[in-house]
Amino acid sequence: MTKIYPVLMVGGSGTRLWPVSRLDRPKQFQKLVGNELTLFQQTVLRLTGQFEAFRFANPVIIGAERYRELIEAQLAEINVTPGRIVLEPSARNTAAVAAIAAASVLEQDPEGLVLMTPSDHHISDAEAFQHAINQSVETAKAGWIVTFGIRPTRPDTGFGYIEAGAPLDTGARRITAFTEKPDLDTAKRWLAAGRHTWNAGLFLFSPDLMLSELKTHAVGVHEASLEAFRLGRENGIARSLDKHAFERTPEISIDFAVMEHTDKAAVFGPLDCGWNDVGSWATLAEMADGAAHTDVLDIGSTNCYLRSDGSVFVAGVGLEDLIVVAHEGSVLVIPRDRVQDIKGVVAALKSNGQFDRL
Amino acid sequence: MTKIYPVLMVGGSGTRLWPVSRLDRPKQFQKLVGNELTLFQQTVLRLTGQFEAFRFANPVIIGAERYRELIEAQLAEINVTPGRIVLEPSARNTAAVAAIAAASVLEQDPEGLVLMTPSDHHISDAEAFQHAINQSVETAKAGWIVTFGIRPTRPDTGFGYIEAGAPLDTGARRITAFTEKPDLDTAKRWLAAGRHTWNAGLFLFSPDLMLSELKTHAVGVHEASLEAFRLGRENGIARSLDKHAFERTPEISIDFAVMEHTDKAAVFGPLDCGWNDVGSWATLAEMADGAAHTDVLDIGSTNCYLRSDGSVFVAGVGLEDLIVVAHEGSVLVIPRDRVQDIKGVVAALKSNGQFDRL
Repeated sequence: MTKIYPVLMVGGSGTRLWPVSRLDRPKQFQKLVGNELTLFQQTVLRLTGQFEAFRFANPVIIGAERYRELIEAQLAEINVTPGRIVLEPSARNTAAVAAIAAASVLEQDPEGLVLMTPSDHHISDAEAFQHAINQSVETAKAGWIVTFGIRPTRPDTGFGYIEAGAPLDTGARRITAFTEKPDLDTAKRWLAAGRHTWNAGLFLFSPDLMLSELKTHAVGVHEASLEAFRLGRENGIARSLDKHAFERTPEISIDFAVMEHTDKAAVFGPLDCGWNDVGSWATLAEMADGAAHTDVLDIGSTNCYLRSDGSVFVAGVGLEDLIVVAHEGSVLVIPRDRVQDIKGVVAALKSNGQFDRL
Repeated sequence: MTKIYPVLMVGGSGTRLWPVSRLDRPKQFQKLVGNELTLFQQTVLRLTGQFEAFRFANPVIIGAERYRELIEAQLAEINVTPGRIVLEPSARNTAAVAAIAAASVLEQDPEGLVLMTPSDHHISDAEAFQHAINQSVETAKAGWIVTFGIRPTRPDTGFGYIEAGAPLDTGARRITAFTEKPDLDTAKRWLAAGRHTWNAGLFLFSPDLMLSELKTHAVGVHEASLEAFRLGRENGIARSLDKHAFERTPEISIDFAVMEHTDKAAVFGPLDCGWNDVGSWATLAEMADGAAHTDVLDIGSTNCYLRSDGSVFVAGVGLEDLIVVAHEGSVLVIPRDRVQDIKGVVAALKSNGQFDRL
């Protein structure tokens, strides 16, 4: 039975979700949806178990050195043993991650497949998601890099889109084009036409295929990142990438480096699995998961989202279209339609040297 | 030289200024205007010194038993020794305070005058205020209960108004009428006509006159409150009123009990002394004293008032017409034109039993 090695990227900083997402504990390590598990833990647990065409191996986690303790602690909380933890001395984007993920899995199991995934998204229907992977195993084994396209529910101009082309024997389709952030008219047209799906940053592939495609289309990434992996220091379950080699690795996404150039790109979808990128407080306000927030009192507000971790008591009276988020002694107050401007807060905190607030 | 005994009432609960004003430390004991002194301390310091026609004696403080330590600590901070502290076992409104203030001062100095005053208002021009008192000493000595009328600056419907009548020899005027909370049209007419001033709850009188007027117009208050004072227990600088006698005292304001009935009521004014009742967060927002609030970051808000005592870091982005107040781990978010609805928060906290937040 095919083994799929989940490779979780935990590199994001998630500043758009300040004050919950912090420098020392960003978005993926916070209980953003529900009160029980962090997004990282939810992602790990979604990628366990045995299915018709495959079973999941223990996960590989790739992230910054400084998150090592957090990764280990959050895995211990849910009783999951990692297959490996790869520690990055700096961030080098997803092409480097794909190379290292491939090399790492190849070292363990030449027959295995890699499922590369962000760890800061939410998927409400794990079963539908696992079913999609199950149906994509044959495509990946037949020599395709499979992406998973999410069915668009609105003409969102903030996402990347994947255009599907001719169908393959195995159920997926060839990819005609990747497009970042279309304008509104284009997004509306795509939504109506139905050939485009959202790019969720999920990839299923066999490691040797990915390595050969990287060698062809992004030889600099291939050489430097594999050297960083090879020269890395083993320390228990973790391998720390070699700093000098890794810093020479070009910083480029796997989409730009490989997916837009290879003729091995396939897309499975459109998926209906309740996917959400948890990209802003507006998104969380829309999800409104009904999780109880401690120490929140709201009197007569409309279309608002008030949450607190209990460190601050929040009282709102007669508010409209507003988001109020309290976390670890900081509170953000911002209109729903201004949430992108949180970056101004983060920039001000940086320039004021208030790193304890970041 | 005439001695004036300031009698400061510290009984208010100030719930409209939650979360700064708290059960255990209400409005008057908080640094609401400026960062240096509480409203109580500012009031005490305004009532010190020597002037042409009088000098201030040490202040008499009248307030709830539970504030004794707070009163003593805040006086010690500004190096003021109280003449006496009268401790009330329960709140019985201002007629009882006037009786006890008169009895207390009469005991010490039969020639002295009483200046009865709230301790939770702000006066930006202390000199103008002291000058007004200086000019009213003769009126008070001539057998009038002098109130001080504040010049209205807007047709406020929330205040009590004093209508001035015929002038007296001593500079003040007889009072034609007291009126509570007029409707807007009336308030506008009065503002234009110029005979009405705001009732700031300030009274200057000789103690024996006040006692005889109380005996005439409010004999129940006179008897019960004086008995409570006479039977009170002395404890250092403080006298605790007798609980049983004080609880028999009718709960009525000095305006209703005496001022509206006596023919000895005079008004001095209109005063321009920067008086402000600090009655709501909207008022404080208008004062916008420029005092620095720690841990507040505002990016592009308009017509807002953000303040924090430093216990919570407050970040506001693109807000409009909003008030955000953080204090001791609680934060209130409320539109400027809804500040009266804070009472809903206070009621909810009470009914939820969250007294630690009150």
